[in-house]
Amino acid sequence: MKIENLINQIKQKKSFLCVGLDVDLDKIPKHLHKHEDPIFEFSKAIIDSTSPFAIAYKPNLAFFESYGLKGWNSLEKIINYINSNHPEIFTIADAKRGDIGNTSSKYARTFFETLNFDSITVNPYMGRDSIEPFLEYDNKYTILLSLTSNSGSSDFQFQLNNGKPLYLSIIKKSLSWKNKENLMYVIGATKAESLKEVREIIPNSFLLVPGIGAQGGSLSDVCRFGLNENCGLIVNSSRQIIYSDNSIDYAKKSAEISSLIQREMSEQLLKKGII
Amino acid sequence: MKIENLINQIKQKKSFLCVGLDVDLDKIPKHLHKHEDPIFEFSKAIIDSTSPFAIAYKPNLAFFESYGLKGWNSLEKIINYINSNHPEIFTIADAKRGDIGNTSSKYARTFFETLNFDSITVNPYMGRDSIEPFLEYDNKYTILLSLTSNSGSSDFQFQLNNGKPLYLSIIKKSLSWKNKENLMYVIGATKAESLKEVREIIPNSFLLVPGIGAQGGSLSDVCRFGLNENCGLIVNSSRQIIYSDNSIDYAKKSAEISSLIQREMSEQLLKKGII
Repeated sequence: MKIENLINQIKQKKSFLCVGLDVDLDKIPKHLHKHEDPIFEFSKAIIDSTSPFAIAYKPNLAFFESYGLKGWNSLEKIINYINSNHPEIFTIADAKRGDIGNTSSKYARTFFETLNFDSITVNPYMGRDSIEPFLEYDNKYTILLSLTSNSGSSDFQFQLNNGKPLYLSIIKKSLSWKNKENLMYVIGATKAESLKEVREIIPNSFLLVPGIGAQGGSLSDVCRFGLNENCGLIVNSSRQIIYSDNSIDYAKKSAEISSLIQREMSEQLLKKGII
Repeated sequence: MKIENLINQIKQKKSFLCVGLDVDLDKIPKHLHKHEDPIFEFSKAIIDSTSPFAIAYKPNLAFFESYGLKGWNSLEKIINYINSNHPEIFTIADAKRGDIGNTSSKYARTFFETLNFDSITVNPYMGRDSIEPFLEYDNKYTILLSLTSNSGSSDFQFQLNNGKPLYLSIIKKSLSWKNKENLMYVIGATKAESLKEVREIIPNSFLLVPGIGAQGGSLSDVCRFGLNENCGLIVNSSRQIIYSDNSIDYAKKSAEISSLIQREMSEQLLKKGII
């Protein structure tokens, strides 16, 4: 997907909401278990009902892999369903991959070619040659973990080097990588004030922001420090949206929650003069 | 697997060789393509021929995932084949996973339960709560990326904090995690001298050492700084062993190369008084 198409979609839907597909068979409504592929049925209904309010979907690979072959099969069906029926949607493989160069090339092929996702989350720990194979793909985006939303983010991501925390050093260093224009960054909503310093280094990049909802981050704080003139934010919510209701009407409830978040996002976009 | 069983196997086979299964359809002998599952046929023959000389196998997830469902199916067959036919072998899922706690729990389930590997490589960047879900499993091992063998390892892993490089801070910090006795560590062979400082912090832990062979690391340097009284090393070689020959006799050639490495390892174990 061209970045212009993502920005256009944001303006049209007045939303920068990403719905995280952390699909857990123990948490989906019980009536779905009679279907041959409950994971796909659940996801399809959530996608159809929430897509007027969401601009991106983010399947979380761990949840699919935990069901082995069956889970991988459901994932293929979901990405194909989105690409065929909702081609405007930006798709994110939340896979957090990264390895030595020849191995990262394989991961890039998996997610950008075999599965045809628009983007993938990757881990920076192994440095330049673990990320550049992903960046070679035109119109595909590599979303670098920088500052994550979990409690363990304080273990290493804030370690100081020359007075600068590791996550900022990583962002700075990434600007020297080949095809850096294909980079986006993960910045957790639970540390919204950090977005100010991040924006000083990468004013124009898109940021994927997890941590709204179940993890406790605030949307208005994220917007205050993170919005740029093209929006520049993709804000994710997973559990709050997809597990809001356990009845036969679950998808309707997910749409209602998404619509509430979209309305709040619309106000923020208006205030910033983006729409 | 109990750690005693791994140590016994090392003493019996006089080897601490791990064979990396980076199976690439473009690189395996052409005659295998007539089989229904060339990836499995290739791996099975390599495993059968090299297992007298190797104590561990390390399928590299990226290579399997890049073939989608088919690749995932081959991986399941390979791990089941090893567990059924070579139960003494230590298995390593080279997956480099890691995510927020509830997601890491899913990855742990995938590799320790669904696939029944003995161990998995994980990425430390997201800190304690991204790793502890893996450590909960008894007799399963979580191999923490510390110092990797690729060129990009110099980008962040050597960043100094209070005079100590990041990879050493990570190792030190990991000793405060719950069930830390289930940790092993990745230390690349291309920086063998670093093993000295690593051994000061974790004298008794097992280290998975990639980078011998195609990546240029030296076995004798690794042994000099890394061997402990229980061996404490698992040294991996992938391409040098599995792609040593392209003829119908490829598995025989792989066994020959493995046997040469095993002989060198046997000398090192003898010198150190381990066997």
